[in-house]
Amino acid sequence: MKIARVQVEGGIYTARIEGDIAHLLEGGVFDRPVEMGRAVPLSAARLLIPCVPTKIIAIGINYKSHAGDRPAPGDPQGFLKAPSSLIAHGEAIVLPADSTNVHMEAEVVAVIGRQAKGITEAQVDAHVFGYTAGNDVSARDWQQSDLQWLRAKSSDTFAAVGPWIETDLTPEAISVAGRISGRTQQDSDTSLLIHSVRKCIAHLSRYVTLEPGDLIYTGTPGQTAAVVAGDTCEVQVGGVGILRNPVRQG
Amino acid sequence: MKIARVQVEGGIYTARIEGDIAHLLEGGVFDRPVEMGRAVPLSAARLLIPCVPTKIIAIGINYKSHAGDRPAPGDPQGFLKAPSSLIAHGEAIVLPADSTNVHMEAEVVAVIGRQAKGITEAQVDAHVFGYTAGNDVSARDWQQSDLQWLRAKSSDTFAAVGPWIETDLTPEAISVAGRISGRTQQDSDTSLLIHSVRKCIAHLSRYVTLEPGDLIYTGTPGQTAAVVAGDTCEVQVGGVGILRNPVRQG
Repeated sequence: MKIARVQVEGGIYTARIEGDIAHLLEGGVFDRPVEMGRAVPLSAARLLIPCVPTKIIAIGINYKSHAGDRPAPGDPQGFLKAPSSLIAHGEAIVLPADSTNVHMEAEVVAVIGRQAKGITEAQVDAHVFGYTAGNDVSARDWQQSDLQWLRAKSSDTFAAVGPWIETDLTPEAISVAGRISGRTQQDSDTSLLIHSVRKCIAHLSRYVTLEPGDLIYTGTPGQTAAVVAGDTCEVQVGGVGILRNPVRQG
Repeated sequence: MKIARVQVEGGIYTARIEGDIAHLLEGGVFDRPVEMGRAVPLSAARLLIPCVPTKIIAIGINYKSHAGDRPAPGDPQGFLKAPSSLIAHGEAIVLPADSTNVHMEAEVVAVIGRQAKGITEAQVDAHVFGYTAGNDVSARDWQQSDLQWLRAKSSDTFAAVGPWIETDLTPEAISVAGRISGRTQQDSDTSLLIHSVRKCIAHLSRYVTLEPGDLIYTGTPGQTAAVVAGDTCEVQVGGVGILRNPVRQG
């Protein structure tokens, strides 16, 4: 089932997406879906970020195709992105005036559905609500120059997510592709992760309590490329759909 | 004025603290204080984290006395801590089973009161609600070994804050001391910051929208030291008071 948050005529609703129709639901994203009996075409709805996380964790260097000369990490290597950097499908990625090298990173994103602390890999699926697409926008110059990746990874608009959450996926082999203005730049699937989705989430939960709505960006494959004002970024995740965001200069 | 969040007989309230008395207030921490006309001794109240942030940003290497051989950064160097790592005054810092070198870091913490994006240093005071004490608990071994400081800085219980927010402080010269089981380990004040509180907040706001309740840990002075199970950490901030947390083994 595809679950979205939508704005319709000024109201914010949870919705089940089927084709081009949003079927509005009672309650929140993580509640048992109960149809309101009201359906609106997606063209009349604005897609919002599909949930509101208390934190976002992304995994660095998690595909060999992306690691390049760097050794594969022995354990999953997480870092935080700020919730204030989130944007929804259709919203613009804004290039900071003083960064010279902003890349897109296409990723499969796990959405936590139940609080998780110290869970095993076998318990992960029961704590994941579903999967969506994410763009872990990254200022490569600041990743090099700064002590930690704060503005490099958490500048406003640097975390695109959506367009909705697919709840009927398991994480073994979800395809993920990244396109810049129609040119395919990244194309892989989660079977090629250095550390599987389940391993990453179990490992993170040893240290950090994961809360419902928290987002886990699972890593980006291949060689990324810079985006410039006027580009359109697309992240296509198998079973989910396409997350599309234009790029503009800040 | 000292503003706290307290639990009294199962209810959660905002409170104005005066001496050993909590005067309960209507509404939330950031609302105009309206007394309920009910006062309880602090001994009958449990202090909670004084606000619930959407994000926590800490500044690294911000006192020369802490930088050691490292050069002073040209710009403030922020990093994120996860809200899930927050603990209140009195709660235990839990040492992860697999870290071997956990330090306390005494810090002055600014609490954002109004949304801030792209503000100048002169505008900072109008966007800060007040100041409190923080312990930026840090696993030094993981700061060395990991790609980024996720579990090193955001393991559960690694962000102590409180006991309350003092709203009548300006940030030029707030004293900050750190004590481990009564032994003074750190002793400085914010006049010795490499980048002032106002400079840090203005700089962060260029990139990251700061929201009401967000916490800015402004940096730790001097040489920190490891804590072990059984220790008690104290962070004393001038004009605020003492944040005290016991340490136990996880």
